[in-house]
Formats: sequence, C-alpha cells, structure tokens
Amino acid sequence: MKALVYHGPGKKSWEEKAKPVIKEQTDAVVKILKTTICGTDLHIMKGDVATVTDGRIIGHEGIGIIDEVGSSVNNFKKGDHVLISCITSCGKCEYCKKSMYSHCESGGWILGNTIDGTQAEYVRIPFADNSLYPIPANADEDALVMLSDILPTGFECGVLNGKVKPGDTIAIVGAGPIGMAALLTAQFYTPAEIIMIDQDNNRLDVAKTLGATHTINDKDENAVEKVMKLTHGKGVDTAIEAVGLPATFELCGKIVAAGGHLANIGVHGKSVILHLESLWSRNITITAGLVDTVSTPMLFKTVQSHKLDPKKLITHRFKLDEIMEAYDTFEHAANEKALKVILTS
Amino acid sequence: MKALVYHGPGKKSWEEKAKPVIKEQTDAVVKILKTTICGTDLHIMKGDVATVTDGRIIGHEGIGIIDEVGSSVNNFKKGDHVLISCITSCGKCEYCKKSMYSHCESGGWILGNTIDGTQAEYVRIPFADNSLYPIPANADEDALVMLSDILPTGFECGVLNGKVKPGDTIAIVGAGPIGMAALLTAQFYTPAEIIMIDQDNNRLDVAKTLGATHTINDKDENAVEKVMKLTHGKGVDTAIEAVGLPATFELCGKIVAAGGHLANIGVHGKSVILHLESLWSRNITITAGLVDTVSTPMLFKTVQSHKLDPKKLITHRFKLDEIMEAYDTFEHAANEKALKVILTS
Amino acid sequence: MKALVYHGPGKKSWEEKAKPVIKEQTDAVVKILKTTICGTDLHIMKGDVATVTDGRIIGHEGIGIIDEVGSSVNNFKKGDHVLISCITSCGKCEYCKKSMYSHCESGGWILGNTIDGTQAEYVRIPFADNSLYPIPANADEDALVMLSDILPTGFECGVLNGKVKPGDTIAIVGAGPIGMAALLTAQFYTPAEIIMIDQDNNRLDVAKTLGATHTINDKDENAVEKVMKLTHGKGVDTAIEAVGLPATFELCGKIVAAGGHLANIGVHGKSVILHLESLWSRNITITAGLVDTVSTPMLFKTVQSHKLDPKKLITHRFKLDEIMEAYDTFEHAANEKALKVILTS
Amino acid sequence: MKALVYHGPGKKSWEEKAKPVIKEQTDAVVKILKTTICGTDLHIMKGDVATVTDGRIIGHEGIGIIDEVGSSVNNFKKGDHVLISCITSCGKCEYCKKSMYSHCESGGWILGNTIDGTQAEYVRIPFADNSLYPIPANADEDALVMLSDILPTGFECGVLNGKVKPGDTIAIVGAGPIGMAALLTAQFYTPAEIIMIDQDNNRLDVAKTLGATHTINDKDENAVEKVMKLTHGKGVDTAIEAVGLPATFELCGKIVAAGGHLANIGVHGKSVILHLESLWSRNITITAGLVDTVSTPMLFKTVQSHKLDPKKLITHRFKLDEIMEAYDTFEHAANEKALKVILTS
Repeated sequence: MKALVYHGPGKKSWEEKAKPVIKEQTDAVVKILKTTICGTDLHIMKGDVATVTDGRIIGHEGIGIIDEVGSSVNNFKKGDHVLISCITSCGKCEYCKKSMYSHCESGGWILGNTIDGTQAEYVRIPFADNSLYPIPANADEDALVMLSDILPTGFECGVLNGKVKPGDTIAIVGAGPIGMAALLTAQFYTPAEIIMIDQDNNRLDVAKTLGATHTINDKDENAVEKVMKLTHGKGVDTAIEAVGLPATFELCGKIVAAGGHLANIGVHGKSVILHLESLWSRNITITAGLVDTVSTPMLFKTVQSHKLDPKKLITHRFKLDEIMEAYDTFEHAANEKALKVILTS
Repeated sequence: MKALVYHGPGKKSWEEKAKPVIKEQTDAVVKILKTTICGTDLHIMKGDVATVTDGRIIGHEGIGIIDEVGSSVNNFKKGDHVLISCITSCGKCEYCKKSMYSHCESGGWILGNTIDGTQAEYVRIPFADNSLYPIPANADEDALVMLSDILPTGFECGVLNGKVKPGDTIAIVGAGPIGMAALLTAQFYTPAEIIMIDQDNNRLDVAKTLGATHTINDKDENAVEKVMKLTHGKGVDTAIEAVGLPATFELCGKIVAAGGHLANIGVHGKSVILHLESLWSRNITITAGLVDTVSTPMLFKTVQSHKLDPKKLITHRFKLDEIMEAYDTFEHAANEKALKVILTS
Repeated sequence: MKALVYHGPGKKSWEEKAKPVIKEQTDAVVKILKTTICGTDLHIMKGDVATVTDGRIIGHEGIGIIDEVGSSVNNFKKGDHVLISCITSCGKCEYCKKSMYSHCESGGWILGNTIDGTQAEYVRIPFADNSLYPIPANADEDALVMLSDILPTGFECGVLNGKVKPGDTIAIVGAGPIGMAALLTAQFYTPAEIIMIDQDNNRLDVAKTLGATHTINDKDENAVEKVMKLTHGKGVDTAIEAVGLPATFELCGKIVAAGGHLANIGVHGKSVILHLESLWSRNITITAGLVDTVSTPMLFKTVQSHKLDPKKLITHRFKLDEIMEAYDTFEHAANEKALKVILTS
Repeated sequence: MKALVYHGPGKKSWEEKAKPVIKEQTDAVVKILKTTICGTDLHIMKGDVATVTDGRIIGHEGIGIIDEVGSSVNNFKKGDHVLISCITSCGKCEYCKKSMYSHCESGGWILGNTIDGTQAEYVRIPFADNSLYPIPANADEDALVMLSDILPTGFECGVLNGKVKPGDTIAIVGAGPIGMAALLTAQFYTPAEIIMIDQDNNRLDVAKTLGATHTINDKDENAVEKVMKLTHGKGVDTAIEAVGLPATFELCGKIVAAGGHLANIGVHGKSVILHLESLWSRNITITAGLVDTVSTPMLFKTVQSHKLDPKKLITHRFKLDEIMEAYDTFEHAANEKALKVILTS
C-alpha cells in the first residue's frame, strides 16, 4: 500500500509500505476513506517530536472501513464504517478506568507517533473496541474526520476544562483549527460573548462567521486593554490558550477575571512566567492537558442532530495520493487561507 | 393607588389601596411598569393557597422604577429601573448564605402571598439589595418581565436540576409557560433532541417553533411507547415534569433512561406513586424544589446578548387597568391560545 | 469441585460440579480462597430473584488465586491473588465507557445470578481485566472480601449518591451489613453527626462502636420526632435508606432537610408513596441505583493505609465446606448477632 | 482603649486609641476576648503590604462579645459571643452573591489592613450579619480563634481547591500554621497518605502528631526523588503549596501526578516559572486564590462535634497586653517552636 512516511527533519515521501496486519486479538485493520493533516504533523516534520523516528507513517485522524478484526474485537466487523480516535485506549489500565485515555499505559497518542498512523491506505488500530467509533449509514463523513482530534481537543481542553457556562464572557487566543474547534464547541454552553484573538485578519473574519462576537488582532491592537474595555475592567470568565507560546499564555493570565479559568490547549516547547505575585489573590484555575477523547460519542450526537457542523473548518480538499500537495498547502496556511484540509481515498 | 386584590375563593377586584411605604431601612418602594399573571395566581384565586388571605394584593412578577429606598439600601436609588424577583432574599440567613434563597428565613416566596404583591401601581420590596436587579437603559423590558419567575424556574428546577448536557435527549412533560421556559433554557446546553409532551396541539406547535425537535400529544398517542421508539428503547437522559399531577410524574418515571434525571418543576397537591420496584436499579436521580432565582443575573446576560428571547412567550398584551380582562384571557388559556399575558402601566 | 447450588425456592446443596474452564479469551478461572454470603443470596434462596434458575452456583463475593487466564487477559497471570467484584464489566460497551458498570451490556450483576458464582472451589470470571483487582502480598484478605460488594454498595449508593460532606448531619436507616458499610464509609467525609436507625438493639450497639453518634430504635421510639429534635427541627442533610421497604423509604422522606439528599440503597419489591405534596418545595434530591464498583480501587487504598477496617463487620467464620451451616447462621442473623460471615477454603 | 498600632516598617506600639463606634447601621462593635498573630501581620510589620499605613490597628483574627450593633443588624445583639471572620462580606454585591467574599466590593480582607483590626480591646466590624458568626455557650473559644483565618484558608485554598479525596496521596509543602491547617482539614476527606515537606524538623515532628503519614526535610533530602519513590514514580494526587516562594511552587509542579491538582495557598511576592513544556500534557489543575471563609459554618460544626481540634496549633499563650512579647515570640517561631500564639484579654 501507499503511505506518507517520515524520514527525518524536513523529509517525507508518499511511498510503498507493507499493508498492516492483525498483531493482537484486540486489533483492527482499517482501510482509510478520509484523513487530514494536523498542526502536530508539521511539528513532527520539523523534527520537534523526538518519539517519531525515521520510517514512521504519520497521521492520527481519519475515518475508514474495517478490513479485518482480531478475535477479541466485539464492537466491529469487516465492512463497518468507523471513526478513528487520535487517542488509543486499552480500556483496562488504571488511567483508562479513570477516563484518562490520553495517559493509557498501552495507548494514548501513539498513532503516527510510536506506531504507524492514518496517512496511508490502511492502518492497524490497537484496542479497536475502545479506540474506534461506529459510523451509521447516513452520516456526514467529512464532518466526522474533524472528530478524530481537533473537535474533542478544543472541547475537552478548552471548553470543558475552562468551565464555559451560559452567559459567560470568554476569550480564545489563537484562531487556528484548534481555536476554531474551541469556538464551535464553546457555543454548546451559550456564552454571552466570545472574543477571538489572533494576528491573522482572515482567520478572525472566519471566526466571526463561526460565532465570535468580537475579534481582536493583537498585532495591531493592545489585546489586554481592549478586553478590559469590553469587560468593564473585570476580564473574561474563561481564557482559552490555543497557540502554545509564552506570550499568548501570559496574555491569558492578564485577561482572566477574578474567579475565572485559564484553559491551556497549546503545546508548549518552553516554560512560561506565571505572575503569581498578582494572580495568587485572584481565585483562578489554570488547566493544562492532553485530550482524552471521552467526549467523542457526545460530539458524534451533536453532529448527527445538526447542532454542530465541523465541516465549516474544511477549506481545502485533495485526493489521498495528492497528500504531498496537501502538506504544501497546509504548511502555508496563512497565504492559502487554510484551516483544515481533507484527503479522500 | 389601584391594585388587584384577593377576597377569598373566586373573588378578586381592581380597587383602591393605600400606596406602600418604607417599613424597614432595607426596603424599596417600586412603581410598577409591567407585570404579568402566573399560573400560581390562578391557584390562589381558586383558594388553593392557604397562606393568601382576604385583602392581599397578589402578583410576584414585574419590572418597575424605584420610587423610594430605605437608608440601608446601597445598590439602588430613586429612578432606577429594576427587575423584581419572585423570591425575596435577606442575604444574611443560613439559607441565603447557601444560595437557597427560596428558603430564606425572612423571605422566599412572600410577594403576593404573605405580603402585598406586584399586580398594583406600587409595591414594597423587602431586602431590596438582594431581591431586585438593575435594568440598563437599552434593555428589552417586556422580555425581562419573564425573568421574575418563569425563566429561572424552568431553568433552575428543570434544566439545572435535570443536568441537561450537550448531545442529550430530553423530554419536557407540559407545554405551558413553565415547560416552555424549560424548553428555551434547555437549549443553553445544546441537547441533541428535545421531546415536548402535552395534550394541547396549539402549544405543541408553538413548542416546535421554540426549539422542540419532536412533539407528542399524549391524549392521542402512547407517550411511553413513542419515547422508547425515538430513543431505541433506552429512554431520555432527562425528563422534566412541568405539570404537577401524579400521572405526568409517573410518565416521567417510565421514560427516564438508566443513569438519567427526573427533574420535577410542577407544584403537586397530591402524593405520587414512585415505582422503586423497577427504578431502584436504574441509577436515576429525582429532584424537586422551589426556584432560588440564583440564575437571574446569568439569564439577564443571555437576554442582553440576544442568546435568549423570552418575549416569544408573550401572547397577549393589556394595560395594567385592564387586568380583570387579562385574568379572563389567562383563565381560558387553551381557547385563547395564551401563554403569557403582559400588563403595562 | 464442590459448590453451593440453588435448586429452587428453599432448596440448596453443597455438591459436586464440573470445574469451570476458559470460554472466552478475556476470561479467568479463579480458585476461591474466601467468600461470604450476601442478603441477596437469602432473597435468591426464597425464590425472589427470577433470573436465578435451578442448578445455578450462587455467590458474588470473594477473593482467590488466578488458576488460568485467556489469551487476551493482560492484567493477571496464574498465581496472582485477586479480589472479585460483584459487578462484571466488559470495559468497552456504552455503559462501561460511562463508568456505569452495573449496566454493562455483557456484564453487570451476573455472578451467582445468570452465570455460576463464587460459593464454590473455582469460579469463571468473564472480562477478567475489568472485573478483578490485584491483591498485593501483605494485604488483609479477610477485610478485602468485604470489598466485593457491601463496601462499594454502601459507599457509592449511600455515601456518594447522598453527597455526605464534612460537618453534615446524616441518618442511616437500617443497621444491617449494607447500612454498616455506609456507616463506615460515610466517615471518609467526616460528618458531624451520624444517626443510625434500626429495630435491633444489638445492631445499634455495634453501630455505636463503628462510629454512629446517635442511635434510634424505631420500634420503641418515634424516629421522626427524635431526628427532628436532634436537628432543631431541620432534618438531616442526608438520609440513607438501607432496608428496602416502603415504611423505611417514607421515613427517610420525612427526616430529610430542605436542600438535602435521600439516597436509596435498599432493594425494593414494591412501589412506595412519594409525598410530593410536601416534598415538591423542599429542594431535595433522591437517588436510587445499583453499585458500579468504580470505587473499589479507592476502597482498596483506604484498607491498605488502615483508614478503613471492614473486617469489623465479620462476626462469624467458617470453612468453605461448612457453608450450609454458615447459611443457617446468616438466616438467623438477629438471634446469632450476625453481620457478615466469612468462609475460608 | 489599648491597641497594637503600626507606625511604618519595623515600628509598632501597644498604645491608647479611641474606642470604635458604629458608623453604618450594618456595623457592630465587638469587645475582643481572644486574638492571635498571623504570618501576614509579620509581613505588614516589615512594610511588605502597601495598603497598610501609619496609624493602623492591625489584626484580622479573634473572638469577642458584641458591645453595640447598628439598627440594620439582625443576627446579633449586645452580649452575644461571636467569631470574627478575617474576610468582611457585604452580602449583596456581585461577588458576595457568588460566594466570592474575598472579592467583596466593600469588604474582603480589610480588617487590620484598610480599616482598624482586632489586636485591640475593641473593633468595629462592618456588615456584621455577614462577617461574624455566633458562638454558643459551651464552645471552646481558644479553638474557634483558629477559625478566623488559618483553618478556612488551609481548607478552602488547599484542601477544597486541591480536591483532596478518600484514598488520595497528597503532599503539603510548608509546615507552618497554614500548612498545618491544611494538614488537619485534609483529613476530613481521608486521604491514604499525607506527605509533609518542610526544612524545620520540629515542625515535621509536630506534623506527624497531627496526622502526616510521611515527612521530608528538603534541606537534607531530595524531596522530588523521595516523593517519587513513595508514589512508585507517579507523584501525588494533590500538592499543596503553603510557603509562597518560587522554589516551593516549582517543587509542587515536579511532584504532582498526571491528572493531579496543585493548590497554591502561599502569598507570592515574585513571579514563578511554570514548566508548561512538561506540564502541558499532564492533565493538571493549578489553583490560586484568597480565602472566602464560606466554609466557616461547616468548620464550626466540626469543632463542636470534636471532629476537628484546631487548638492543637496553639503553642504559646499571652495576655492581650503582653502582645509586644507575643510578637517577639512569633517573630522567632523556629527558635521558640511556635505555631500559633493566643492572646486573651
């Protein structure tokens, strides 16, 4: 089969690889129908993710058809359409029993990281019963690809951890795909105001069409001053960090109201300064963590009932074997006005 | 001044009464701008509410202008527009400190019950700082009248107690004003499906325009069977009782899923049968209680930000001195297709 | 092997049965070291539990040694000492993923009910990875037998559902083994007062030694009056029903404070009267449900750290092959002053 | 009357001041029976707290007798014994209605800060109904002085924010009075292990008598290594910071387990480094904030029912007019082996 293979920093190719086979009786092999590229994949390509080694097939999102299952798989059979979770869960370790699938002792984020991933014609999924979700006949499969990673990530790490509530004023710093996923799913809880902060006017315009009530381009404007003006000097109930830089994290710390929540989604490569000399008395909560994808069944229902349309995040479409071109587009997201690209086999 | 006065079962009149005055330094006197009639007022008129005695001015909803405040009132001054809560809170008893304002030792539901109420040109509001809410200049005052009682009641007793969550399937039994308030505010949490059950087709039609995804007329149809069919035999995550009869409560018990919530809003005059012989093993939660109106500030924000439009519940409009006619309309709600009437001074 | 077999109402025998074998690759076969008899087993013996049929080996509690495991079992190997949960969990159905193991689509309470149980020399445990817990070398195995069922049941259905908090006043109605388990585990949350209500003075005396601060024999005293006197007319923050009769459930409804919790543990064979005509305005929460045994790992830690000593509930000890005598003792619990009997192989 | 007055950094005196009088009708004047000295008072004396100016009577803890009340005070009358909260709450601003008394718009921590405090023969308490608590006749008044500040602070900011649960392993960094208050109140939730970390062996020995299961002197030992060894490499479920220095905060970040809580109590004068490059993926929650004293009524109940004995923290006793000597002792806490000093009028 064909697959997108990492060969060290800056090097990748769409090349022939052996089709995966069942290794454990809890495995499934899935034929990929649709996949996408994540910001994390770009980090991998730069060599930022040490666990990914030469020869690895990358990708951790997608939907497909069950090609084969091991004898201990009960929930799926050949021919079933399935959604692949970016998080693999064994369902029986200490962490899985606490619904912390991201820290699963035999799973977690392994797809396209420590085992071969979904940017390929076929992929092996360990612990299939706990790591795949059934797709009914009439489902919108483009929309569902967004549920492999970015929707649960924006929702769990941003919206749930940030405890967004009806009537709240919230800010989301970063209008990339993850920030947009937080924007879409924050609206599950009907906040009164959603302030989107980014440095790309195109993305801010898109954010307005997706439900942002205010936007701030913090290249041009003083975001702290503007947020404080909008909130009568109080700050926001929830500040969601969806970038992963010290400056954006510190911005969140400056705009969060007393009693508020700072929910970090961004992947950080450096430590940040936490201004406890002012924050210690502000009764705030800061959260940081990986997605567990425990919300996937719920997100599925909201897509099926048309309460959520994650397809709005898809800006570009390619065939699976055009993946090198898709990477090129996604790597130049600002110029290409790209959010999510979708690849169809 | 003129006021609507209760004179025993079946007897009321719009008559001259003394204008109220400040009795305690925490009181305010409010000139009524708008008020409405509650289902509870009809119960009072039938003689069902023993605490209401001959000579009482009734009514516990409305907005107005501050006419006078006692010396210990800090939050308001003459001329301020205010929303009157149906629940009076002293802010300093054991219950108020636990946010259980409905059980306030010196307050709770006293307006139009044990002290004179809001269906009058003026009303005295005890503990004004904790029982009134400021209305800004640009607000939609018709909409805000709905926040005195029915919106917080539907929301707190139905939606919050019922723990409605994104993606849930819920049922609301009773499509009167309170059921409709639960319907509007349930959508704060984006349930996937909302099934409205009533015996009045007009109300069910209105429910559809307000967000119900399914309706069942349980005069014509077997509601249990239909709910079970819609939910693939599982039942609903939350069943909200908004009628107050044994039959509707028992219906809720039959349609709630394992792990689900039965939230009672209805005022019950009789005991009900609880089928613990089947429910004991279903991991359900049943709640019952008075509104505390702790959610009023939040509801206010959602009205101001156009996330909630409670004005949709207003079907009829009268001048305040046409209140006898307004009662007539509201007493024949089914024929008149009435939900909420609004009275303007 | 030998096993205790049900042969219809009133008939049981300790007889020869075939040793169980691995049927699915997720099974384990466990050699029983210790088991006990549950009140539910007495119900079964009376013919009250329709799902239990002639020929069934009963029992759903115990500890043992792994004798054999299927190829998909990862957490255990031959020779490991294990605690058997009364609830079997597949770990991969919709309910297990929501931690509602009691409603597991392939499990739940099946041991000694729809499949053969633990009152035998060997037992087959399906989904072993999710239904057994490892026992370290130095553990107190007598104490751990109490963790198969009664401790998690008292804790989850009584204490957790009842939301017992530091400083609370609580009442437990029923001082049998389950009520005692609620008594022991309620103290995890340091309530100020624990009122134990029963009709057996011996059990009330034991309750005092286990931490009850007050006891009421409601055969001799008016329990409602006495609770109201102790609580200055307010009632208890949490009332735990640990009997399963209409009268005890209604007692709980009469003694629960405004804002309080009524947590039902009892197995009810009949419907009960719920006095909504008074309770509707009391802001109460009623819960009812099966144990999920999600708290077993936590209970394990509290036993290991000597914060909980469930061995205090053991009143009688037998050899496994004396089980007919043990049943005789447990069936006459009041006369024998029996709480839990323990059987050792 | 006599009072302890601040006269700029390093200068204080026990001197004659005018007895306070009622200024607002919601005030009470309280005759001090017992007071104590807080670590914060030492900071004030060093000139670290800019809001405290020359001439201020300091102190924010104590119990006393009501000497006089304003006309709007309902809960108290002359002669009542009362506990003074370190936090003044108006009961009617936006923050008080959300139970965030620490951020009360007219109150918060003002006693001995922006208004005269409790280290005096008399003190004026604004908003007496919401800022004082009644003391019954038989109460242990020495114990209750500890409830003005350190017990609610340790409990709310450490134990509640840190979500301590039964069976948890927790660490408390800092064995001063606040850390000890966290230690005492953490036991309300029955953690399995409590690791106390400090550099003073005397305090660690005291911690053991108060319930610590392990102690680490991090002057002599590598605390991270030792905690990791005790927790089998996982870290603690909750790390409570009770010092207020960058090093102790960072230590907490290093020992908190995946999925755990870092609850900051310490008052920080400097920013800290937050190692998001490792913590971003650890699913942790960090909290920081002032005490709201919402738990005072509950703590009161646990003292009355002998579940909590805060008197154990009292190491030294003085008469009120020996306060200069008491300060001297408290300023040399390590040498004097002092935790809390108590001053009696």
